[in-house]
Amino acid sequence: MTAKKASAIANANIALSKYWGKRDEKLHLPQNSSISMTTEGLFAHTTVCFDAKFTKDSFVLDGKNIAPDTPEFKDYIGNFLTFVKKEYNITEKARIESKNNFPGSAGLASSAAGFAALATAVNSALGLGLDEKGLSILARRGSGSACRSILGGFVEWKKGVKDDGSDSYAVELATADHWKDFRMVFCITSLSEKKIKSRAGMNETVKTSPFYAEWLKTVESDLARIRQGILEKDFTIVGQTAENNALKMHSLMMTTEPSIMYWNSGTLEVIDAVLDIRDKGMGCYFTMDAGPQVKIICLAKDVEKIMKKIEALKSVEKMIVSRPGEGAYITDDHLF
Amino acid sequence: MTAKKASAIANANIALSKYWGKRDEKLHLPQNSSISMTTEGLFAHTTVCFDAKFTKDSFVLDGKNIAPDTPEFKDYIGNFLTFVKKEYNITEKARIESKNNFPGSAGLASSAAGFAALATAVNSALGLGLDEKGLSILARRGSGSACRSILGGFVEWKKGVKDDGSDSYAVELATADHWKDFRMVFCITSLSEKKIKSRAGMNETVKTSPFYAEWLKTVESDLARIRQGILEKDFTIVGQTAENNALKMHSLMMTTEPSIMYWNSGTLEVIDAVLDIRDKGMGCYFTMDAGPQVKIICLAKDVEKIMKKIEALKSVEKMIVSRPGEGAYITDDHLF
Repeated sequence: MTAKKASAIANANIALSKYWGKRDEKLHLPQNSSISMTTEGLFAHTTVCFDAKFTKDSFVLDGKNIAPDTPEFKDYIGNFLTFVKKEYNITEKARIESKNNFPGSAGLASSAAGFAALATAVNSALGLGLDEKGLSILARRGSGSACRSILGGFVEWKKGVKDDGSDSYAVELATADHWKDFRMVFCITSLSEKKIKSRAGMNETVKTSPFYAEWLKTVESDLARIRQGILEKDFTIVGQTAENNALKMHSLMMTTEPSIMYWNSGTLEVIDAVLDIRDKGMGCYFTMDAGPQVKIICLAKDVEKIMKKIEALKSVEKMIVSRPGEGAYITDDHLF
Repeated sequence: MTAKKASAIANANIALSKYWGKRDEKLHLPQNSSISMTTEGLFAHTTVCFDAKFTKDSFVLDGKNIAPDTPEFKDYIGNFLTFVKKEYNITEKARIESKNNFPGSAGLASSAAGFAALATAVNSALGLGLDEKGLSILARRGSGSACRSILGGFVEWKKGVKDDGSDSYAVELATADHWKDFRMVFCITSLSEKKIKSRAGMNETVKTSPFYAEWLKTVESDLARIRQGILEKDFTIVGQTAENNALKMHSLMMTTEPSIMYWNSGTLEVIDAVLDIRDKGMGCYFTMDAGPQVKIICLAKDVEKIMKKIEALKSVEKMIVSRPGEGAYITDDHLF
């Protein structure tokens, strides 16, 4: 038997209408649909090899070996491999190596990019022949929002209604070329790992936030507004709705018991700056995920001025400008 | 006719279970009951004089004349004087002077202290003979939460159900002496005036926050927990519930459209420090009102250690330690 090896690259994605809370924890089926932009330039590069000569599964993330008996392995890669092996009758052990070109576990969607790349590589290595829908569902088994990073441009993850998750996958709303001057400026206010993994946080929110049921009711109209805003390239509608949606999600987090506080002082410094820039008439909005980073949503023509303003803030360690990017793809560039 | 003059002092109060939203804007009748601690040491000192020789009403706040044609006069002092004159058949014009020994309009309950002092002074100057209940209702006509500053210690403002507001006033839950080692440490992160007055903010929240109805449902159990926690001097229950309640209120503010963001980077710096201190085993909690200041709730024995930690934060301009204080009282010390 020969080794089955493949590599893939997948971009991180940032939700404009957020996903927070599962209806099925094992299958990663969401309580609500979500819409994201696949970013250009923040990506995971992953190589997988299934080989009969391997005596155990192994996983190296950003050069660091993740031991198979750790929750970090078992709850993520371990679960995913167990599923893949069972589903496709694979007997070989797997070696996986993955690298992010941006910091992991800091609210920058590293697990989404990682699992989208892994699913794409697995599909190729094992010759599964999955189409985009199948790939999206496979990526979702690794990490919910990974299903969105399979596709490029603007993407909607349809929550689906079936128990087996076969209708819960991402579809393209618009290509990256549809809205070339849409931008996100990542303002990195802390590179340290977050204390609470998104997965644990969202389960607690569903159980304890008094606002969770109401959130679900309002998400549908946010999705409708953002969907139409993207199609019509109506920047104000998309920006306003995304910002409001992010604040609602963070309200859910804060009202979880015990409270989940992902923000730090830098988060507020950037938010203040965005509100200030907007007060002066320039169109820009913010969104935040499960971490202290702020992503400023703006148009290409305003990026320079906004960056100048943000540069002056003492708490911003780094900025990355991103535009709508491509979906996951196979590469010949193997990590081992 | 002789001039009718009196002066009073009233302490600010900080809610442990918050008031946010009115059921009657004119009478300042709240959507929900609230519980507060009357502070010691942050107070308003007010002198009022009704005199037939005055040709117009006048108001001097912290040494600054507030012109009668400004919204700042009309919406606050003007409304209050109109009510008092009509209710008690007063024909004289009034001269009012008030001083806070702490910054106004910065989320430190300056209008609550101010109107509690004014109501107390007016009652004396005009010989209205109001009891505590009557004074609380009168103060409420000036600013909702002022009704709580009439009383000392731990106070509950019963929302009432009547249209005329005659059952919406504050009652004492426990005296200041009941819990002598309860402390609030005011961490002043910005002394600038807030952009949005509480009054305008809460009206928008009631209209637009998707979480408002749910908030009202959860407030009752917060009140019950804090009420019992105060009676039993159960610091953990009071602190936990107050912190959670404050985060819920700020979630309402943030999810108002357009969003109301009272926090600044210093707010998050203090919150982070509190969470850190608590992680290390010391009991302390935070609460915030309509401004960026954070009030740390703790016990006397821990004040020193907590202050040392907060002192190190670059964004905290000033700290004030307060304990449960007295209700409003008459003073012979006139401001003019």
